[in-house]
Amino acid sequence: MERIATTALAERAGERVRIAGWLQAVRRLGGVSFLVVRDGWGTAQVVADDARALAPLAERDAGLESVIAVDGLVVASEQAPAGYELREPVMEIITPVTEAPPLALGKRELKATVATQLDRAVIANRHPTRRAIFRLEAAVLAAYRAALATRGFTEIQTPKVVASATESGANVFQLDYFGRPAYLAQSPQFYKQVMVGVFERVFEAGPVFRAEPHDTTRHLNEYVSLDAEMGFIEDHHTVMAVLREVLAQIFATLANEREADLRLLGASLPDVPERIPEIHFAEAQELIWRAWGDDVRGEPDLAPQDERRLGEWARAEHGSDFLFVTGYPMRKRPFYTHPDPARPDYSNSFDLLFRGTELVTGGQRLHRYADYLAALERASLPLEPFAWYLEAFRYGMPPHGGFAIGLERLIMQLVGLQNVKLAALFPRDLNRLAP
Amino acid sequence: MERIATTALAERAGERVRIAGWLQAVRRLGGVSFLVVRDGWGTAQVVADDARALAPLAERDAGLESVIAVDGLVVASEQAPAGYELREPVMEIITPVTEAPPLALGKRELKATVATQLDRAVIANRHPTRRAIFRLEAAVLAAYRAALATRGFTEIQTPKVVASATESGANVFQLDYFGRPAYLAQSPQFYKQVMVGVFERVFEAGPVFRAEPHDTTRHLNEYVSLDAEMGFIEDHHTVMAVLREVLAQIFATLANEREADLRLLGASLPDVPERIPEIHFAEAQELIWRAWGDDVRGEPDLAPQDERRLGEWARAEHGSDFLFVTGYPMRKRPFYTHPDPARPDYSNSFDLLFRGTELVTGGQRLHRYADYLAALERASLPLEPFAWYLEAFRYGMPPHGGFAIGLERLIMQLVGLQNVKLAALFPRDLNRLAP
Repeated sequence: MERIATTALAERAGERVRIAGWLQAVRRLGGVSFLVVRDGWGTAQVVADDARALAPLAERDAGLESVIAVDGLVVASEQAPAGYELREPVMEIITPVTEAPPLALGKRELKATVATQLDRAVIANRHPTRRAIFRLEAAVLAAYRAALATRGFTEIQTPKVVASATESGANVFQLDYFGRPAYLAQSPQFYKQVMVGVFERVFEAGPVFRAEPHDTTRHLNEYVSLDAEMGFIEDHHTVMAVLREVLAQIFATLANEREADLRLLGASLPDVPERIPEIHFAEAQELIWRAWGDDVRGEPDLAPQDERRLGEWARAEHGSDFLFVTGYPMRKRPFYTHPDPARPDYSNSFDLLFRGTELVTGGQRLHRYADYLAALERASLPLEPFAWYLEAFRYGMPPHGGFAIGLERLIMQLVGLQNVKLAALFPRDLNRLAP
Repeated sequence: MERIATTALAERAGERVRIAGWLQAVRRLGGVSFLVVRDGWGTAQVVADDARALAPLAERDAGLESVIAVDGLVVASEQAPAGYELREPVMEIITPVTEAPPLALGKRELKATVATQLDRAVIANRHPTRRAIFRLEAAVLAAYRAALATRGFTEIQTPKVVASATESGANVFQLDYFGRPAYLAQSPQFYKQVMVGVFERVFEAGPVFRAEPHDTTRHLNEYVSLDAEMGFIEDHHTVMAVLREVLAQIFATLANEREADLRLLGASLPDVPERIPEIHFAEAQELIWRAWGDDVRGEPDLAPQDERRLGEWARAEHGSDFLFVTGYPMRKRPFYTHPDPARPDYSNSFDLLFRGTELVTGGQRLHRYADYLAALERASLPLEPFAWYLEAFRYGMPPHGGFAIGLERLIMQLVGLQNVKLAALFPRDLNRLAP
């Protein structure tokens, strides 16, 4: 008999079918046994009135997480979680598991500390709530790429092993490249800019590496960055408008395609307003001073607490889960940042806060060769390591800008995870290199 | 006036429109000037009868690769490469370029050595033939993901910084991870197998890193690997059947969507036969002995020359650009390889040759915990570094297998490039860390 997915039972009511997967739970009530079988897409309940149906499990000493196949009759049932269950089962053991798994996967919630979930990720990720998180992540990625591709962006693949640190000398992993030092890319920033000279609009979804030597609930040392860069912009507001459309398309896709996963996780989708509210960095500092009595004016950046306050304000004042903070001070932004022509101490840059946490960073970049030479000199940076990058500007670049979305951050904020590490399959942190 | 893409002229015949991009070529014939403007998607010809139309270029000393905008009247023209051109142009200089670019981008072919193309990739990649290669690459990626997603595969993102080398201790880049040694992933092999326990069918398209200290035309030290892994297989032939369907879908997508790029590059798409011909490793060695008089019997692997010969044979004998070679000897395959139950010295593995070069490697893996313990002992490998990986098998894994396609190899063979480095935007090799 050909195997079908557990999610396809409804289409086969009244027929005998074969399913296969992992034995996720066994419950005995009187003479009746209830089994839950999990396959790659969902779970199915199997009901055995006759204890002999379970004999193959006993014969092979096969416990939870054993890989099994079950032939059975598809019957509509109000008690079955999915509305249909398998009756009169005939069971086959494919791979018996004789030791009890380290985590209870049959419970509705995964009861384990964050550390245990991460240390035993190989097994923990089998739990339905963990699977839902990673299916959301896959859907975000696919929606992101579709949103960019339909807007004329070309997907690119840029190197992750690079000759010099991009953003700053700190926080970069060094490696041995055939006896020479090399570094892991902190972002595809230089490459995506250069590629504006080739395709005008480009995007990449790939790993980036940050050697930040501290352990927080908001940071990963390796994460997936959804990068985009585009030419022929007016200023950073052109970029912000594209970003808004991309986010709207991502969340619309999740609403259409991943409703069950969102429900399982108790996650509520945000509305993406037609115009996301926007506040200038200097005004944001004034607001924090006026409303919370905390004088952060003159600080070069926003602290996490400030971001949370601004998130609350955006919700209360604008009914929005999103807030653009624009015009970050030039002195804390990287050398390629474009200044605000009207207020040159501030930049044509932005962060997008989502529920009070920075989700996206972006802005307009310098595009004139002479401006780069001046900016590097101001920053006391040598020209030589940037020679290849500067070539793009020497030979013609339009006004351009872009953004980078942190994939795991997006999922953390969407699902309300307590720690961003729970949004990575196998996260990397200060102490964790395995699994 | 709102700007339109150069590829949209045909829709606007008889209207005045605005285009913008890079000044790719200027030709003067008598009193008439012909300009080629390149934007992110194509090129357009601009014809100026009146020399004054070009005055803005002279005023700003703006030469080739200057970024310009042109307003003009769309006119059908048999002489124009795309069938339409812009007349009565009014030009605006956005970013003047005053130095001659290092490569001539206005010629039909990019006349430069491989080394120059790679050293000046920032500019070389602007050439229409280079752009066509990378648009093909983006299309392959998108088609690959679509083919897997429609077959129930879930996309995953696995770490690239890992605690220990996977395939072998050699050929791995070492890095400093907060004072501890770590390594760059040579493949997502262990992670994708473990994820079969989670989603059953998974795929990933991401960078992999090989510290091979030799410089060939077929190898990159960093490349994009299209990985897939699936559970509940019969043996490696189940994997080969999925791979065939995926490749057929990729090439069908290129035929539908990228015909112009293929034509520009003179690339001919292969037919993917309903059944790709297959030869066992031992038979392949016999064939090489019989047909070429070269006794390679007893060798543990095929040399590049042998692959070329087998490619010729598949074309002559079966009319196929593809050939599966199956059953590679166990002694040269990694420890997780599943043996052929009927001939245990040979494995349930395969390579797929495309036009005489290895394009894909794959096979069935061990899936029983006890088999892993025995295989590691046989290979004299310690258990401890594999503890997390072994957890997957300890707690239930079905028969499974998968494959890995080299993206740049695929493009090299499809386009007929002389060097695989020309299929990467910014390749990494023994001597090349930048651009």
